[in-house]
Amino acid sequence: MPTIDWRTVDDYGMQIALAEARKSFEQGGIPIGSALLILDEAEPNGYKVLGSGHNQRIQNSSPTLHGEISALENAGRLKADTYRRATIYTTLSPCSMCSGAISLYKIPRLIIGENQTFKGDEALLQSRGVDIIVVDNAECKDLMKKFISEKPQEWDEDIGELTN
Amino acid sequence: MPTIDWRTVDDYGMQIALAEARKSFEQGGIPIGSALLILDEAEPNGYKVLGSGHNQRIQNSSPTLHGEISALENAGRLKADTYRRATIYTTLSPCSMCSGAISLYKIPRLIIGENQTFKGDEALLQSRGVDIIVVDNAECKDLMKKFISEKPQEWDEDIGELTN
Repeated sequence: MPTIDWRTVDDYGMQIALAEARKSFEQGGIPIGSALLILDEAEPNGYKVLGSGHNQRIQNSSPTLHGEISALENAGRLKADTYRRATIYTTLSPCSMCSGAISLYKIPRLIIGENQTFKGDEALLQSRGVDIIVVDNAECKDLMKKFISEKPQEWDEDIGELTN
Repeated sequence: MPTIDWRTVDDYGMQIALAEARKSFEQGGIPIGSALLILDEAEPNGYKVLGSGHNQRIQNSSPTLHGEISALENAGRLKADTYRRATIYTTLSPCSMCSGAISLYKIPRLIIGENQTFKGDEALLQSRGVDIIVVDNAECKDLMKKFISEKPQEWDEDIGELTN
């Protein structure tokens, strides 16, 4: 088995998540994207994208299709063993629902674009053995900053916070 | 404000969740149902059903539409304040994803049909202030028993467990 350069795979995974976040922003939606990847020797680059997606609150009036849930939903039904070899990428720290989904399927690696705008259940996931890397990506933060300045109430709604 | 008979409201909520579970079973799906209710003085019985739903793994190849997520999704976009006055009913103890959704939206009351077939993140929810009642309903257990005896692999898949 060839040596895996995780930096390359992780850069690629985060770029897919970011492309989803950008797409959502351009649609007037909450700019959070996610992707689920798995290493696969049969693939030319050694990895395969199982699914990706973005927040659908505004576009589809969905209170449950956060970026990560969308990526998992778009990946479709997978065997337990597949999740346990996968990495999930998300542009923003996962809320308790999305952290719970990662926990349910025992996804062992989580790469986070940024956790300054919002920090979800990272400590809980770490206590359950999830390996977490926060890459502190500037574009992930910029997209959220722009969205929140334009639509603060929609952001509060997305994280269950009371709007002042 | 009239005195609320929670037993009556909770019986009603669990019956809606159970009807969803039965419907799913009849469709060949995983028999777990859920409902989201809120007290509402403007309603004749003093409460309102915001949404209900059932597991959609088999029917719609969905890995994220568990009973509770379906009920929340069907309720649509709600204000943070609404969730904080709601009660969620589920025929089976919520997995970590569904517990995370309850936690995200700060739903303060959770009524569980049974937690013998599967026990999710009840302790975590209690530590976060959620009031939990387990009613130990025989039909909830029977439906799961029948389903698991017929389709054990699909059940393992639904809770991220490796199939032997």
